[in-house]
Amino acid sequence: MTQSIRQPTQASIEDFALQQQVIQWRRYLHENPELSFHENETADFVEGQLQKLPNLTVTRPTPTSVLATLKGGAGPGRTVLLRADMDALPITEETGLPFASKRAGAMHACGHDAHTAMLLGAAKVLSGQPEKLHGEVRFIFQHAEEHFPGGAQQIVDSGALAGVEVVMGEHVMSPIPTGVIMLREGPLMASPDGFDITIQGKGGHGASPHQTVDPVVIAAQIVLAFQSVISRQLDPIVPAVLSVTQIHSGTAHNIIPDTATLNGTVRTFDPELREEMPRRMEKIVQGITEAFGASYTFNYQNGYRATVNDAETTAILREVAQETFGDTVTVTDGKPLMGSEDFSAYMTLAPGTFVLIGAGGPDHAPHHHPKFDIDERALDHGTRMYIAAARRLTQPL
Amino acid sequence: MTQSIRQPTQASIEDFALQQQVIQWRRYLHENPELSFHENETADFVEGQLQKLPNLTVTRPTPTSVLATLKGGAGPGRTVLLRADMDALPITEETGLPFASKRAGAMHACGHDAHTAMLLGAAKVLSGQPEKLHGEVRFIFQHAEEHFPGGAQQIVDSGALAGVEVVMGEHVMSPIPTGVIMLREGPLMASPDGFDITIQGKGGHGASPHQTVDPVVIAAQIVLAFQSVISRQLDPIVPAVLSVTQIHSGTAHNIIPDTATLNGTVRTFDPELREEMPRRMEKIVQGITEAFGASYTFNYQNGYRATVNDAETTAILREVAQETFGDTVTVTDGKPLMGSEDFSAYMTLAPGTFVLIGAGGPDHAPHHHPKFDIDERALDHGTRMYIAAARRLTQPL
Amino acid sequence: MTQSIRQPTQASIEDFALQQQVIQWRRYLHENPELSFHENETADFVEGQLQKLPNLTVTRPTPTSVLATLKGGAGPGRTVLLRADMDALPITEETGLPFASKRAGAMHACGHDAHTAMLLGAAKVLSGQPEKLHGEVRFIFQHAEEHFPGGAQQIVDSGALAGVEVVMGEHVMSPIPTGVIMLREGPLMASPDGFDITIQGKGGHGASPHQTVDPVVIAAQIVLAFQSVISRQLDPIVPAVLSVTQIHSGTAHNIIPDTATLNGTVRTFDPELREEMPRRMEKIVQGITEAFGASYTFNYQNGYRATVNDAETTAILREVAQETFGDTVTVTDGKPLMGSEDFSAYMTLAPGTFVLIGAGGPDHAPHHHPKFDIDERALDHGTRMYIAAARRLTQPL
Amino acid sequence: MTQSIRQPTQASIEDFALQQQVIQWRRYLHENPELSFHENETADFVEGQLQKLPNLTVTRPTPTSVLATLKGGAGPGRTVLLRADMDALPITEETGLPFASKRAGAMHACGHDAHTAMLLGAAKVLSGQPEKLHGEVRFIFQHAEEHFPGGAQQIVDSGALAGVEVVMGEHVMSPIPTGVIMLREGPLMASPDGFDITIQGKGGHGASPHQTVDPVVIAAQIVLAFQSVISRQLDPIVPAVLSVTQIHSGTAHNIIPDTATLNGTVRTFDPELREEMPRRMEKIVQGITEAFGASYTFNYQNGYRATVNDAETTAILREVAQETFGDTVTVTDGKPLMGSEDFSAYMTLAPGTFVLIGAGGPDHAPHHHPKFDIDERALDHGTRMYIAAARRLTQPL
Repeated sequence: MTQSIRQPTQASIEDFALQQQVIQWRRYLHENPELSFHENETADFVEGQLQKLPNLTVTRPTPTSVLATLKGGAGPGRTVLLRADMDALPITEETGLPFASKRAGAMHACGHDAHTAMLLGAAKVLSGQPEKLHGEVRFIFQHAEEHFPGGAQQIVDSGALAGVEVVMGEHVMSPIPTGVIMLREGPLMASPDGFDITIQGKGGHGASPHQTVDPVVIAAQIVLAFQSVISRQLDPIVPAVLSVTQIHSGTAHNIIPDTATLNGTVRTFDPELREEMPRRMEKIVQGITEAFGASYTFNYQNGYRATVNDAETTAILREVAQETFGDTVTVTDGKPLMGSEDFSAYMTLAPGTFVLIGAGGPDHAPHHHPKFDIDERALDHGTRMYIAAARRLTQPL
Repeated sequence: MTQSIRQPTQASIEDFALQQQVIQWRRYLHENPELSFHENETADFVEGQLQKLPNLTVTRPTPTSVLATLKGGAGPGRTVLLRADMDALPITEETGLPFASKRAGAMHACGHDAHTAMLLGAAKVLSGQPEKLHGEVRFIFQHAEEHFPGGAQQIVDSGALAGVEVVMGEHVMSPIPTGVIMLREGPLMASPDGFDITIQGKGGHGASPHQTVDPVVIAAQIVLAFQSVISRQLDPIVPAVLSVTQIHSGTAHNIIPDTATLNGTVRTFDPELREEMPRRMEKIVQGITEAFGASYTFNYQNGYRATVNDAETTAILREVAQETFGDTVTVTDGKPLMGSEDFSAYMTLAPGTFVLIGAGGPDHAPHHHPKFDIDERALDHGTRMYIAAARRLTQPL
Repeated sequence: MTQSIRQPTQASIEDFALQQQVIQWRRYLHENPELSFHENETADFVEGQLQKLPNLTVTRPTPTSVLATLKGGAGPGRTVLLRADMDALPITEETGLPFASKRAGAMHACGHDAHTAMLLGAAKVLSGQPEKLHGEVRFIFQHAEEHFPGGAQQIVDSGALAGVEVVMGEHVMSPIPTGVIMLREGPLMASPDGFDITIQGKGGHGASPHQTVDPVVIAAQIVLAFQSVISRQLDPIVPAVLSVTQIHSGTAHNIIPDTATLNGTVRTFDPELREEMPRRMEKIVQGITEAFGASYTFNYQNGYRATVNDAETTAILREVAQETFGDTVTVTDGKPLMGSEDFSAYMTLAPGTFVLIGAGGPDHAPHHHPKFDIDERALDHGTRMYIAAARRLTQPL
Repeated sequence: MTQSIRQPTQASIEDFALQQQVIQWRRYLHENPELSFHENETADFVEGQLQKLPNLTVTRPTPTSVLATLKGGAGPGRTVLLRADMDALPITEETGLPFASKRAGAMHACGHDAHTAMLLGAAKVLSGQPEKLHGEVRFIFQHAEEHFPGGAQQIVDSGALAGVEVVMGEHVMSPIPTGVIMLREGPLMASPDGFDITIQGKGGHGASPHQTVDPVVIAAQIVLAFQSVISRQLDPIVPAVLSVTQIHSGTAHNIIPDTATLNGTVRTFDPELREEMPRRMEKIVQGITEAFGASYTFNYQNGYRATVNDAETTAILREVAQETFGDTVTVTDGKPLMGSEDFSAYMTLAPGTFVLIGAGGPDHAPHHHPKFDIDERALDHGTRMYIAAARRLTQPL
């Protein structure tokens, strides 16, 4: 995984200059990461770059997000939202790259630097050729994707996106080989909910279990019962995950504790199932604690919504990708990911598609890892995909 | 384990004759076993033998039980009940003994033949020497010990035992070496209760668990939860057993069944705990079936009461045994047995003690086995223990 | 759900006559069902009908299956297999239809009568117009789909299908509304495997668990551990089912049994996962029985393979369906079914697609039910789909 | 619970003076508690008091324990060990007593102050009347009973107790009413062992369980399997406890952890069972971790031995108690306690009995509680029990 700047093959001088620019932007952002809700310098930088471009109206819908609006000159059409996210993660980088993060405890370890750079590149091209565009494009440079409740919902709530008719976002993926673009109709990324359960038993001496209500045994019964929610209660072809990731009880070898806690995550793609899960889980917790004479508290926190790609938009973008890249890129369906995205908030405004851009391969460090890095050749794919999608999706249906 | 008639050591001619008689009675009974509630010939035989003895009043409190009453001539004292049981088991004998059961499907495989013969022997001696006896002795030859609800309770209910002040019974034990008499204060034999649980789920196709409420998984959760009743909810020094001995569900490989059944036994020595057990169990069944959206039926059947020996009577009988047998017999405390006895019904009338007479050893077949047999030398111990107990317990306190 | 013969709308006189014929064939077959491997009359009837048609070569690859071969006159092309199955189920019909089964204990409760009639109809049309056909069509009227190991594998093993390049089959579906055709790329129907597990513990008295190795508790641990195979060990987006549908242990309330048995079914779509499942399951059985000092036997029987539709053929057939039916039929993707089909055996010869033809709706009795019936309007869809598929798939690629 | 000095009823002036002295000693010690292995002032104080008494040889077998030897003048006899322990607990007293602990973080919350005072009182009386004593008495004032591995074993290892033929110790018990002395043959206090288990799974993302080996589910299976060690594998009449008192796994809602830990305590009275327990437990841990593809570490730490009273010594001491106290005290059998004592170390030298002295009642705070206090009238019982036991047990058998 070398980091030298590569020559785009079969690209015009103009294209080459654009890609050089996108790489520079990406590296600058990579060196200067900012954590979720603190993207002040980043937003200023992005706003500054956009201000240099013609035909754009630039605003700040929230303190650390930037919105640019471009009216097409080719006639009426749809209003399309293109989205990039800008925040970094609380990780100290270990890549040793020449443009590695200058800030300990902050790193673009999820590729948001690439998203921002690619969308800037698309804005540069599109804003320079409004005559090739119908309708209207809104470029949203979003804060705080990594931190629930997420910047996307705040921007939606701001009203700045009123009138948007179709939405499109991209994500570079280090585990997917460069040259692959994943365009999947239907469920793409899961809703990541959390739960916190306390089992209230009655503590006592480890030698006198009969004077206690042992929360450890109750917790064990609940953990096993939760497995059968997945294995027995859900449709086998509907993906879902229920993971008890934390179990904690007790402080001493000879003291049966008062309480046990269970925490974990639930992942689903289906809104109805998502509402059903806490009901099923609490029913189990209630029944089993009653069975043993204990009580409980049950808290369930909804995370982001599932990201579910619109069939029509996805079909259009598949054609767009094939037209744009021909044989140089493989367009694939892929499989749903149990990970999550707050891009789903924009999908409450309008249908749309979230596109995954291969940017590495099996030997790349995974996302959220201190050695995470992307193959910068993917920047070209992402930039051009933004541009082509904007031109096509803004066309009247 | 030879079956020849043995010469009692250090016994007078009279004693020898008595023991020969007891052995003959026992062998006759062994050849002619009758099942519980069908002890017609046996009762007739016993009644006939008792009718030959002096000073006895003989009645039939129930169709197949026999009661003989003997008033002591030595002055006032207590009324003592001595008990033997007479019924056989539905087992086909495989001992090959010369006096083996003549009836297929019926066998004295628990030693009741010995009890009856020994108590007849005691009646013979005691009825011949009323001057050595205070108070009153009642000899009860009971039917149907092996079959719940048991003959003892029927005889108690008949009123025939009104006035009894202390009760004493014996049981030969093939696993206990001949020459040992076990006299244990407090809990001796458990109450053997039964339960029947049906888990009502909802059946369906084996490939579509989400359209069912799978009773198999619920049953598994309940079986494991029941283990913690013993391990967590009961005082560790209070013996108790909860065994799920039957679990049944399903008829085909690809059909999730509607129901699962759990059956089993509960053994306790403590009446309060015994009442508590079904409450604890049903609470678990209720909670866990609710946890999974199933329903249930729960039935709990009390078997015989626990047999709990009176401290004072047991102390007296320990002295009696030591005086009677000296060094030729070892009197021991032993440990409680999780098996059961309907002798406990008599203990609702008056305090008393149930005495276990060693009649074999580790190489003997266990009770209820088609090769069960006893060491007939134990008949002497049991007979003399009945006699000495009667003389002592009838004395005024 | 009336059973009168319906007038196909917008159909030529010729078409109308064909559909009347197909309905008559279907009703005749419905009245005369034969069980798997005993389809003698049925095969004779089908062979007889085929013999009446021009241009066909008719053989019997196995005693109760019929194969007809038709060479196209339009030039070279691919060799296509069209398949119908002919066997009935051991169910006594309760529909009350005028053409209900005349044989108690045998019923076309899965629609194979329809499949056979539709394929006869297709053979009639295609054989009459060889000039409209490239390549070669083989019509296989298969026996014994309902009974493992299935007729399909026997026919494949006979060698009669050598040279087949693409395969296509149909199934009428009573739960899917008439007018819907389901054409799904990838996994369509599951592989239905079976397992039989015996846990060998050590029995004993219900009051003495410590002298036993209780198989009931071990079985409960295994049942719960199996849930986590699905919930923890498998990719959440890969459908799979593991159902313990039978658990049996014990015969008496007070006897801890020697053994417990677990039986059930495993459903997967992925051949690798299918091989993995018995390994994972046996590992659990081995570990848990060892944990408790028990032993086990583990048997796993592969059922039919999963039916996985070829992407290219499916895409072609989607176009074919749209061209053939236009707006009168809805072509849908649907979702995988956890049920199974031995059509998968043909897919070991060549890629292909299995097509589901809506033939009822939510208020129809399910397959394998004594009141199962289909909406006969679906016969038209199925017949025309066979014909159009044959013409298109035989074309050179 | 008043703390005024009470007048012993029916006691001579001399007795009264002795009891006043014992109370003073106890209160002085109570005010000046020292933690285990740090009993320097306490040992100096005890040694100082003993030095004032005639006929004693006083040594320090370990830095903070004191041994006094007294030869009887009545002729040869047995060598008897009388034991008191002296250490306090790391608890800050909350009784508000006038003689409450002057040291924050140290408190005689288990009555060792009373034991020391009572044994000093006994030493005073016995040393003043050697003519009433056969054989030899050794008074051991022991350090560090509260802290494993305990002072008793260190003193035994020092060799200072060579020649001891019978051992006797006392413990005041706040939950047992004053006026009750518990003298139990056989198992009295349990061996308190500890265990630490680590389940080594394989961590990963909470949304991707199939890429992990989830230790939480494995831990739950093991916790439930451990319940059946007690409920199924052990003789129901043999008391034992297995408590998992700590379960810990996981640090984040969306990360499946690598490991889970289980810690807890095992209590038994029987040395063979005690050796068996870790074998049974590890077998379960091994089997279940293998079942799921995980590994484990298993550590088991033996705590003190069980305290099992010698039958003969206990019988003698029952007589001694009855002779000494007549009707003023109730001698009882009681039930085994699942708590533990390092007095058991002395029982490896010689048979003996540990005597529990009622010193409170149901409304008293329990041992190891910051409001723990004893009824000082019990000091009289304990002192006189020591004296009478010494005189009797030293007599030749």
